[in-house]
Amino acid sequence: MLRHFHEELEQVKEKTLRLGSLVETMVEQAVASLVDRDSRLAEEVIASDNRVDSLDLEIDEDCLRLLALQQPAAKDLRFITTAMKITTDLERMADQAVNICQRAIELNEEPQLKPYIDIPIMSQLSQKMMREALDAFVRRDADLARQVIPADNKVDALKNQVFRELLTFMMEDPRTIPRAIRLILVSRHLERIADHATNIAEMVVFLVEGKSIRHAPKEPS
Amino acid sequence: MLRHFHEELEQVKEKTLRLGSLVETMVEQAVASLVDRDSRLAEEVIASDNRVDSLDLEIDEDCLRLLALQQPAAKDLRFITTAMKITTDLERMADQAVNICQRAIELNEEPQLKPYIDIPIMSQLSQKMMREALDAFVRRDADLARQVIPADNKVDALKNQVFRELLTFMMEDPRTIPRAIRLILVSRHLERIADHATNIAEMVVFLVEGKSIRHAPKEPS
Repeated sequence: MLRHFHEELEQVKEKTLRLGSLVETMVEQAVASLVDRDSRLAEEVIASDNRVDSLDLEIDEDCLRLLALQQPAAKDLRFITTAMKITTDLERMADQAVNICQRAIELNEEPQLKPYIDIPIMSQLSQKMMREALDAFVRRDADLARQVIPADNKVDALKNQVFRELLTFMMEDPRTIPRAIRLILVSRHLERIADHATNIAEMVVFLVEGKSIRHAPKEPS
Repeated sequence: MLRHFHEELEQVKEKTLRLGSLVETMVEQAVASLVDRDSRLAEEVIASDNRVDSLDLEIDEDCLRLLALQQPAAKDLRFITTAMKITTDLERMADQAVNICQRAIELNEEPQLKPYIDIPIMSQLSQKMMREALDAFVRRDADLARQVIPADNKVDALKNQVFRELLTFMMEDPRTIPRAIRLILVSRHLERIADHATNIAEMVVFLVEGKSIRHAPKEPS
């Protein structure tokens, strides 16, 4: 019974990492579909969201079964309920990737407003945050989780930079407004992905140390 | 023991409703601070976010204790894990209310761009969605939960209307852009609040019926 429990718990970890890597690829490809002006890739990413939803449900079911059948100890209990919350965050990160794809499809139909520089950097940072937050979770590593959180400020700063730059475009030529707004939205979707990664990291610290370091809500998100 | 369990479960419901009503008031007052140009009220709402965080943690702890000590049956198990997810959504709705207050404080320092009509309607709709989703949760009422979901489209439509209207302001006079963008953000914060309410309603349907009706990700969120 005990061995069975640990095997199932390992499976929850493994599936959570698999879900994370699926979502990470979606984010990467969503931004690639914008940068490479590849709307077909964007459509593929949108279609792959189904797999995220079904894996999320599967992890949820696994966790409920573990809770029901195995009467886990306090430490494992918190781990399992945290896994259930984390998968919800991952599922919503995938939704943000889909949103980016929708903006990319619209933007790819018009001339490119400017070279995309900060947006790919935001994407890379967010992906790294997501990956490290999930590593920290499966290893129950509060230190690694804490290291994730400051990167959120970098993503925020980039988002503000994108905003300020696009504001100058809009001010100079109102015809650029619709495209500029779409790019601002893309930067906000990425910022929300980084926010979710931060949420996950904070949950991991809480899981390991039992104390909340939940961040104060910040600038426009 | 059994009676004790049901009492504790009732307490979780009661606290969840209390958290919901706290968050609802924050949303209402956040929009009031914008409409009435009352930045002091906005500051009060921001300060009240602490109470949300501590009540959220308290509910989480109550749920973990119930899971650990009481070995609940499958039905109650799912109810408790759903409560833990719902409080996370409520906490993030409160963060959105705080974001609205921050925008309100900035907007209140400048001349009002236009009368606010759609934004208060969006706020009322979102508050109603939140209230009904939580009622559906504590009563385990899937029908009521289902009724919440279509309202999300109304909120989305209003958000798009706000956007289109403000776009005309920006096109005509670029000096209005910073204020218009802030108002667009307020409408997006409200839309995210409605999104969270939709998430809660969907979780309630899943809780009661065991089937997922998770919505496809939509237009810019």
